[in-house]
Amino acid sequence: MKIYSSFDAPSLRRSVENGTLEQRKAVLDILEEVRNSGDEALYFFTNKFDGVSLSTLKVTDKEIAEAYERVDNTLIGIMREAAQNIQEYHEKQQKTSWMMTRPDGTILGQKVTPLDSVGVYVPGGTAAYPSSVLMTVVPAVVAGVERIVMVSPPQKDGALNASVLVAAKEAGVTEIYKVGGAQAIAALAYGTKSIKPVDKIVGPGNIYVALAKREVFGIVDIDMIAGPSEIVVLADETANAHEVAADLLSQAEHDPRSSCCLVTASQSLAEAVQKEVELQLQTLPRKEIARASIDEYGAIYVTENLEEAIKVVNELAPEHLEIIVEKAQESLAKIKHAGAIFVGRYSSEPVGDYFAGTNHVLPTNGTARFSSPLNLDDYQKKSSVILYSDAAFKENASKIAAFARSEGLEAHARAIESRFKEEM
Amino acid sequence: MKIYSSFDAPSLRRSVENGTLEQRKAVLDILEEVRNSGDEALYFFTNKFDGVSLSTLKVTDKEIAEAYERVDNTLIGIMREAAQNIQEYHEKQQKTSWMMTRPDGTILGQKVTPLDSVGVYVPGGTAAYPSSVLMTVVPAVVAGVERIVMVSPPQKDGALNASVLVAAKEAGVTEIYKVGGAQAIAALAYGTKSIKPVDKIVGPGNIYVALAKREVFGIVDIDMIAGPSEIVVLADETANAHEVAADLLSQAEHDPRSSCCLVTASQSLAEAVQKEVELQLQTLPRKEIARASIDEYGAIYVTENLEEAIKVVNELAPEHLEIIVEKAQESLAKIKHAGAIFVGRYSSEPVGDYFAGTNHVLPTNGTARFSSPLNLDDYQKKSSVILYSDAAFKENASKIAAFARSEGLEAHARAIESRFKEEM
Repeated sequence: MKIYSSFDAPSLRRSVENGTLEQRKAVLDILEEVRNSGDEALYFFTNKFDGVSLSTLKVTDKEIAEAYERVDNTLIGIMREAAQNIQEYHEKQQKTSWMMTRPDGTILGQKVTPLDSVGVYVPGGTAAYPSSVLMTVVPAVVAGVERIVMVSPPQKDGALNASVLVAAKEAGVTEIYKVGGAQAIAALAYGTKSIKPVDKIVGPGNIYVALAKREVFGIVDIDMIAGPSEIVVLADETANAHEVAADLLSQAEHDPRSSCCLVTASQSLAEAVQKEVELQLQTLPRKEIARASIDEYGAIYVTENLEEAIKVVNELAPEHLEIIVEKAQESLAKIKHAGAIFVGRYSSEPVGDYFAGTNHVLPTNGTARFSSPLNLDDYQKKSSVILYSDAAFKENASKIAAFARSEGLEAHARAIESRFKEEM
Repeated sequence: MKIYSSFDAPSLRRSVENGTLEQRKAVLDILEEVRNSGDEALYFFTNKFDGVSLSTLKVTDKEIAEAYERVDNTLIGIMREAAQNIQEYHEKQQKTSWMMTRPDGTILGQKVTPLDSVGVYVPGGTAAYPSSVLMTVVPAVVAGVERIVMVSPPQKDGALNASVLVAAKEAGVTEIYKVGGAQAIAALAYGTKSIKPVDKIVGPGNIYVALAKREVFGIVDIDMIAGPSEIVVLADETANAHEVAADLLSQAEHDPRSSCCLVTASQSLAEAVQKEVELQLQTLPRKEIARASIDEYGAIYVTENLEEAIKVVNELAPEHLEIIVEKAQESLAKIKHAGAIFVGRYSSEPVGDYFAGTNHVLPTNGTARFSSPLNLDDYQKKSSVILYSDAAFKENASKIAAFARSEGLEAHARAIESRFKEEM
């Protein structure tokens, strides 16, 4: 891991995943095919891409029961506790409908309602993450979404990962289908005979899934286009180099394009962490991935002082930020852009990935500048409510009509004036 | 306007604006050109598309002062009052950072912060809408956004519309540039020498603007891809046919692709409104537009009863909904999907377009199923905050490590266990 003494160091921001022209065309073809041929296309693409010939897409209760047999009971207990924590944290985000009244009798407000249905994409293959199922599904249940549809590509044996099925059941998924890739996104957006369409699609996937989500955005809502994971540790000499290095590596092991950074004013911590990273890398099962990530997207920034370090952090706008400095609260106050902020030695990043209750679906690639962690707002929407009083109407009708006319919208003005006919 | 006796009538939902392949390619070229050549490309495209050769993009204080000279003082007063109402309504939406504590000493919360910067797109040409400037800018100011950049294509004389400039100043825009189209979106997303990039782009535009926004989504945030305006009136025999017809026409005049619907259980109201629409159409300045909209996307649904009418409304998920029935509150309670709900005779839709204080940037084309009116959340984001206590850590460390290991993420488990070394 290289040490840089200034932030002129190579930028860590990666370009947005827009795919190659070929990938985009492939996705457009798949979407079109599913739109036209429905289930038939789903079976075809599942055969083609996942190498499985299925006779039905829906996961049965029997399959779920069998999954429970295959998953360790201790793990099921941990999942339940994690789900409970996630539920508790997301319940605090509950919004209520509200109103304001004006002296003239007018009532204005917002009516908050859950989405009717949500589709949750869960990647397949080697990377089966039941924790992500909890993170995307539990908030939907808390928000009051009635129909929660999970899709995931089948393994070679035609089944889904057992832990993923258990997590889905524990979290409250209402329908599960064995289909992945762009074809799954198409099914969720357009609907097929087997799979009714949903209102929003959440959850990460590969480049084809990401491109398909971008393409159907507008027909349905989507959460975000997630990039590789990132961590930034803001630390001073009170931090333990061994622990900081371990936390950096926890993100580096995700993906060769993951990014990890230490930002510190302490040269001695910088050097100690640099050594520790090398040491701990040696024995990691996923060391090739972590190595690639560190080499390409890892960095240690040594700044003049803490103030400057905080500026660098806000510039990076990281997905995960750990603050391990003496007066952590003062630094927390100055952080403007970060997906999740872990404060203090015991707030190691995996605590949030798995258990604390906060969401681990977070804005990546600097998008914490303008995006939030997955949260209850993602599963609810608001309607404006206007009960305009007759007094307010009489007082303001001529102003409204004049404003409309100034924009050349005569029918708007006349709509207002139509009420004058009898009354005013 | 045709009367249908069942909802098997032709669906009113229009397809999502994805543009033609040619339009998409043109947009990609413009984005690339601005990304590479910056201001030079902006001047080039402004010359090409707007027919004006500019020497500078930024609007000066002098130009704004001149705009005030050209706008009627009464109108300025109305704008100020409207801005005040918008401010009041959006202030009620203010979110605060919050926290929860657990008995083990853990603190979890959400930190709410405004975006640093926002770009507001304002269409040019014949359709200059100062009201839209108020609707997109005032909430940004309320949210605490420091840098609010407005872009709009120049008229043939090289100036911007005077009312738009006055509205911008009144609302609190901090920078204004004379540039429109996809090139303006590129400038806001990538930045040029004259225009620093922003974090989010809001506001409606033509198909090129919409495609460009979709393309830069991820580099910056965007509000939504807005479609043509829509209104649905839910009414019974207590409604006044003259007024209902006038309200329907107020949306029909926007665009040949606008949509307006009456949903009612009253055959007599249906017929009366049908006649009134024809009558009022004759004298409308924009009657060609309104005629096209009514013929193509207008409909009167006569349902069995109110219950069924409400089902149709939820199916349509309209941008604007008026409820003019005897027991309006009971109907309001049953509405699940609508952008803005106008209740009662005096809540004529233009009241919300111009003056009441609610936002007129609303989800169109059925997207009220999953989207909200433009609101304060669009200008703020949240960070999760985790202060995990040492007690919680000791209690749960082994569970977290086990969960991580079950997903094959050994470095995550080790990050947790690195804290054991000295303490546990």
